[in-house]
Amino acid sequence: MSAPEAERLARVTLNSVGEPGNLQLTAAVADLGAATVLGALRERRDDLGRDLAARLRAADPVRTLEAAEKLGLRFVIPGDPEWPNPLMDLARCGPLHERGGVPLGLWVRGALSLADTARQAVAVVGSRSATTYGCGVAGDVSAGLARVGTTVVSGAAFGIDQAAHRAALATRGPTVAVLACGADRVYPAAHKQLLDYIADVGVIVSEAPIGGAPTRIRFLARNRLIAAMAQGTVVVEAAVRSGALNTASWAAALGRVVMGVPGPVTSQPSAGVHQLIRGRDALLVTRAEEVLEAVAPIGTHTLQDLREEDGLRDRLTPQERQVLDAVPVRQSAAAGSIARAAGLAPAKTTAALGRLEQLGLVVEEANRWRLAGELESA
Amino acid sequence: MSAPEAERLARVTLNSVGEPGNLQLTAAVADLGAATVLGALRERRDDLGRDLAARLRAADPVRTLEAAEKLGLRFVIPGDPEWPNPLMDLARCGPLHERGGVPLGLWVRGALSLADTARQAVAVVGSRSATTYGCGVAGDVSAGLARVGTTVVSGAAFGIDQAAHRAALATRGPTVAVLACGADRVYPAAHKQLLDYIADVGVIVSEAPIGGAPTRIRFLARNRLIAAMAQGTVVVEAAVRSGALNTASWAAALGRVVMGVPGPVTSQPSAGVHQLIRGRDALLVTRAEEVLEAVAPIGTHTLQDLREEDGLRDRLTPQERQVLDAVPVRQSAAAGSIARAAGLAPAKTTAALGRLEQLGLVVEEANRWRLAGELESA
Repeated sequence: MSAPEAERLARVTLNSVGEPGNLQLTAAVADLGAATVLGALRERRDDLGRDLAARLRAADPVRTLEAAEKLGLRFVIPGDPEWPNPLMDLARCGPLHERGGVPLGLWVRGALSLADTARQAVAVVGSRSATTYGCGVAGDVSAGLARVGTTVVSGAAFGIDQAAHRAALATRGPTVAVLACGADRVYPAAHKQLLDYIADVGVIVSEAPIGGAPTRIRFLARNRLIAAMAQGTVVVEAAVRSGALNTASWAAALGRVVMGVPGPVTSQPSAGVHQLIRGRDALLVTRAEEVLEAVAPIGTHTLQDLREEDGLRDRLTPQERQVLDAVPVRQSAAAGSIARAAGLAPAKTTAALGRLEQLGLVVEEANRWRLAGELESA
Repeated sequence: MSAPEAERLARVTLNSVGEPGNLQLTAAVADLGAATVLGALRERRDDLGRDLAARLRAADPVRTLEAAEKLGLRFVIPGDPEWPNPLMDLARCGPLHERGGVPLGLWVRGALSLADTARQAVAVVGSRSATTYGCGVAGDVSAGLARVGTTVVSGAAFGIDQAAHRAALATRGPTVAVLACGADRVYPAAHKQLLDYIADVGVIVSEAPIGGAPTRIRFLARNRLIAAMAQGTVVVEAAVRSGALNTASWAAALGRVVMGVPGPVTSQPSAGVHQLIRGRDALLVTRAEEVLEAVAPIGTHTLQDLREEDGLRDRLTPQERQVLDAVPVRQSAAAGSIARAAGLAPAKTTAALGRLEQLGLVVEEANRWRLAGELESA
């Protein structure tokens, strides 16, 4: 077995026995490598050593990786082509709430390369008990980001997270869901379809071991990944002392751009965001253009960028537009999956896909549909 | 005629021939005094001199002051006990939109001393086409300010201004309306009752000559007085490039605290405020306590201050509270005027006043009602 492969297996083992963002573990592995740390742990005869001994003996990384493959999961570690390098900033940052450090590895499920998605990414996070207003703005902002190819990173929770992912998906843009539970699990349960669709056309990622339940510690550790994966974090509606503000703190600690969308001062869910802006801890933003301006070098993004597609779309019926918006941007999907995403009956969807094909907007290959080349590069 | 009296008459004359905030005029008078400037103007034989000659000949300051007195107006100049000294900061500030300088004098109408009201004052300004949300928040903030004796300065316009004045009046707090038209005029016409009530228990002030119509130039000049009269300016809903933002610019130029109340990003009237906060030109505020914290030395105002009266008020019926809130804080008012302010029928108001008198909360004198001593000092 090659040395890198030993290192990968050691990381799988440590991932299965340690908690995400454990400060001692992430620091030791960053310093010494996982194989060395694992060896040292096996040698320990103290209390911690005895506690760990049974779990380490039970760990079978080869079988874990085989099981993962069957679940459609891969394990990505630093140095892999798919490893998102922005996460290395976590080595010089934290801790917050006793969590921190570069993850030992990430369980990844989905069509996109994690490294690719992190190249230009913005986190959009906020309250689970969001208002219609908050979800609307989160959707508008996320759609504007996704439309120009910026990855929308969020946590797949109810409320703002859900609105952010959905808008990115509807715009055929890249989106990443960072979970506190295992990447194979569905949490919240009501988001099964959403998570399946994200895995289909975007990517799901988690530091928690396969099958791991979401816990408070894992949420706190997860938030640092959301912040680190993105060049900036936009908070839309967040109660004072909420998880979204924890993500914002990580973004600030990482030197990322922290942004907040204001709302009515009479709306409790906006109170946390107002507090951030009041304290000059966040830049007030009202729309996607302002977010892009804040995270990108001056002049890179202009209003023009956001309007490029208009000409083509104007020729379509609303239903055709709905279907076109549901075709994934980077790979193909089955008609059934597109129908679900578009919220239309399969027959109507197939008819619309036929028309879109005639117009040269989509291409069929082996019973799956993808966007035609021209649009894809737009 | 005493020298100061000559200076006052010269200022009345110049006030009647020059436009508010005329840069040359305010600067020359600040340097040389009005009598000297007036003498020099009378000597001028150039175009400007000829233009002015007829108007200067027509000016009759003694008669103007007599007419003013009949209208209930007084002319206040620097050095008078009632002169609000914060306005002197205008000597070192500006111009904006070609307006600036210390006013030659102010026409004042109303019960309060202008100097007193300026001692602790906050301007609350915003859009004429304000939303229900904006007016509600402007009212809440203004009530919170007025309740602790902070003067609410505004411009008596529709929308936010009106809501600010009304809330201050309802809280029996001091309020100042700074007009762009003559202090004797009513603009907008629909605000006759409001302005009369402000004159009754607060104060109306204008730099424009008596009978002067409101013009764009006078609005711009007026805005500098609103900003200068107050320690801070709160903008609630303001379109981009609005008068309220002009007032905010003056406040910033004067080194006053500039504050903005955010709103939904989907609401056009909040766009100007969001722009201010985004540019770090304004501090985001959501309620009166935050405004007081920003304009006052740390610890001067606490949440406690705002709750002092609760014990007394809890014993009243809603209608009695409404009437008590309509009794002016610093002087007496007729029952009819209180009924109008309370929005209740005269009979109901009289009954409530009787009960409030029994409770020792109000005092009747010569058919006019005022707050009892204890409450007044609270």
